[in-house]
Amino acid sequence: MTTEVKPSPRERLLEAAAALTYRDGVGIGVEALCKAAGVSKRSMYQLFESKDELLAASLERRTSAYAAALLPAADGDGSPRQRILHVFEQVETQSGAPEFHGCPFLAAQIELKDPGHPASRVARQVKENLTAFFRAEAERGGAKDPSLLARQLSLVFDGGSARAGIGADELTGLLAPTVITLLDAAGVR
Amino acid sequence: MTTEVKPSPRERLLEAAAALTYRDGVGIGVEALCKAAGVSKRSMYQLFESKDELLAASLERRTSAYAAALLPAADGDGSPRQRILHVFEQVETQSGAPEFHGCPFLAAQIELKDPGHPASRVARQVKENLTAFFRAEAERGGAKDPSLLARQLSLVFDGGSARAGIGADELTGLLAPTVITLLDAAGVR
Repeated sequence: MTTEVKPSPRERLLEAAAALTYRDGVGIGVEALCKAAGVSKRSMYQLFESKDELLAASLERRTSAYAAALLPAADGDGSPRQRILHVFEQVETQSGAPEFHGCPFLAAQIELKDPGHPASRVARQVKENLTAFFRAEAERGGAKDPSLLARQLSLVFDGGSARAGIGADELTGLLAPTVITLLDAAGVR
Repeated sequence: MTTEVKPSPRERLLEAAAALTYRDGVGIGVEALCKAAGVSKRSMYQLFESKDELLAASLERRTSAYAAALLPAADGDGSPRQRILHVFEQVETQSGAPEFHGCPFLAAQIELKDPGHPASRVARQVKENLTAFFRAEAERGGAKDPSLLARQLSLVFDGGSARAGIGADELTGLLAPTVITLLDAAGVR
């Protein structure tokens, strides 16, 4: 006999907000979110102050899974070069899925157009963490200018996932040669 | 004595749609668009079949000005390398304006999340024209793989303008070194 624990209304709302905003955009209505979660509007507003807070919490909740899917293990081996390339291999793989619409944290910021929005603040922190990972590896790898290389890698990450997300390009045969050229130019082993 | 010709309702709607969607996103309501244009909803629907068609027409109308602001003169001199760098210098300058929110044609596609939307189709064509410009210059400049270089430059263009548009980074000291590294690696003089 299996016992299934039904997710709580809070969890269902967070899941619906993450899935629907990624698929349809941050303009998705509260009605649609509540309907998808099977939660009344009244209950939603008891759990979250506003739709903005729900969006922020739904992005926050994706943070660990996002990092785990992209980054190599913190205590893993591999050279800085390999660890940086690992991130781009992951996004290349992810981008092959039909439901891929690019990086959710970049999309949220572009759509919200308000750096002060609670969800923009969460998203910005996630992207800053990725840049910090690149910077630390660039430094370990002996990059001439670790800060510049980290900014370049973030730019390639965001440009690549945005373009793949809208179907403007595929990442295969594009991301790896670009990153390798930048790593070589920076002198990262 | 000066004579001022008041823009037509059609022109006012196109202008309002371009300005408001760029500032607030494609979710902007028909009411707000009509109010900003000083045009009744009835008139709007006589001029445009739908809000989707208005968005598409407003992007279409920006196309020439966008290309003129970014691209060097078709019959201008300058090496392929200089002509490619010109585009990135322009976007670097544009990104310094406080009202800069990145490339409007990328943002529209990310926000609409529907490649079949009439406005997405207009936007995609504009970006394909930019990639074609990069490809032609890459070829003239003797790039080893002109198609790859054109895709890389489009990726850097979109990644850079997206990141500057959300305030994640500044393009000064970032775009030029990145593009130069890619041009060097491709062997473009």
